[in-house]
Amino acid sequence: MASQIVNEVVTANNAYAANFGSKSELALPPARGFAILTCMDARLDPAKYAGLSEGDAHVIRNAGGRASDDAIRSLVISHKLLGTKEWFVIHHTNCGMELFCDEIMSDLLDDSLATASFDGENWSNPQHGGGCAAGHFIKWHTIENQEESVAQDVARIRSHPLVPKNIPIYGYIYDVKTGKINEVSEATKLGKAA
Amino acid sequence: MASQIVNEVVTANNAYAANFGSKSELALPPARGFAILTCMDARLDPAKYAGLSEGDAHVIRNAGGRASDDAIRSLVISHKLLGTKEWFVIHHTNCGMELFCDEIMSDLLDDSLATASFDGENWSNPQHGGGCAAGHFIKWHTIENQEESVAQDVARIRSHPLVPKNIPIYGYIYDVKTGKINEVSEATKLGKAA
Repeated sequence: MASQIVNEVVTANNAYAANFGSKSELALPPARGFAILTCMDARLDPAKYAGLSEGDAHVIRNAGGRASDDAIRSLVISHKLLGTKEWFVIHHTNCGMELFCDEIMSDLLDDSLATASFDGENWSNPQHGGGCAAGHFIKWHTIENQEESVAQDVARIRSHPLVPKNIPIYGYIYDVKTGKINEVSEATKLGKAA
Repeated sequence: MASQIVNEVVTANNAYAANFGSKSELALPPARGFAILTCMDARLDPAKYAGLSEGDAHVIRNAGGRASDDAIRSLVISHKLLGTKEWFVIHHTNCGMELFCDEIMSDLLDDSLATASFDGENWSNPQHGGGCAAGHFIKWHTIENQEESVAQDVARIRSHPLVPKNIPIYGYIYDVKTGKINEVSEATKLGKAA
């Protein structure tokens, strides 16, 4: 028997498909020629906050919106094969990635894989046992300061050997209290060719 | 001077923020407790095709919707710290990742970083020079068959040591011609605990 979530997702999808219309004709390359790298956070809807229709732009998302190797793999494919010419890195206020560091995460996982709880200051495991040491071998890409993380990520992408110098990379922070994206001008500067 | 794309994105964002309303009160953990891993493809809007409102679910996206190390990092954070309890892996028909292999991509980049062109069968570089050998050291996570890639990705996540066995992982393929998500039942079977 399907879970309630599966039923809800399939029902919503049926409604979407019933009014699909001319979207069946959309081309594979992004019509507006740009890509956004942003966080997986549930409160962020990049299509809504950046005004994207289906077919417009690539959207890459991970925990933090970080310029991981995998995000760079995706961006290079986006430009080299599918022609995007401008990229945005958009982190956000009140990000979960600010609430822990590598040591906290790996220690929590070492003890238990079950969901931890947060009291506003510290994380703890409500149950113990069944953990795994593998977390100690992962870089979690946590964030101390959003302006710094946006600047770091833009700089990392800018300096990657597979990224052409003529692609501008813009740095922004999405404010979860207002819905506004605010430019990190120092990051955007780093994102433009010298 | 800002580019046309930046102006369009900022204008759309201003309109979104102007009607932000009660979204400023949304909590950080996903309200509906699930996560979707899907492709960065511009034609896919997971919020629309799966019926997500802001605050509902984590959305992780990369080239292909692949279960890369970085996608698994994001999923583990999603469950361990933010409580998601069910995950979807959703690839799609007519994916760009089916149109090349690692050797084609790395050879193209070796020759030039500029956007390549595709004649329906082969990729070629419209201009030569300025390439970089770094692409030969990247696994691009291309796809030969969508049902296989969904099954591989679900199986990889299922067998990861940091993924608890009680999280069901569902495999689907989004059809870009109809907007429907169709279950890959073999993949979903792999995604459930034995």
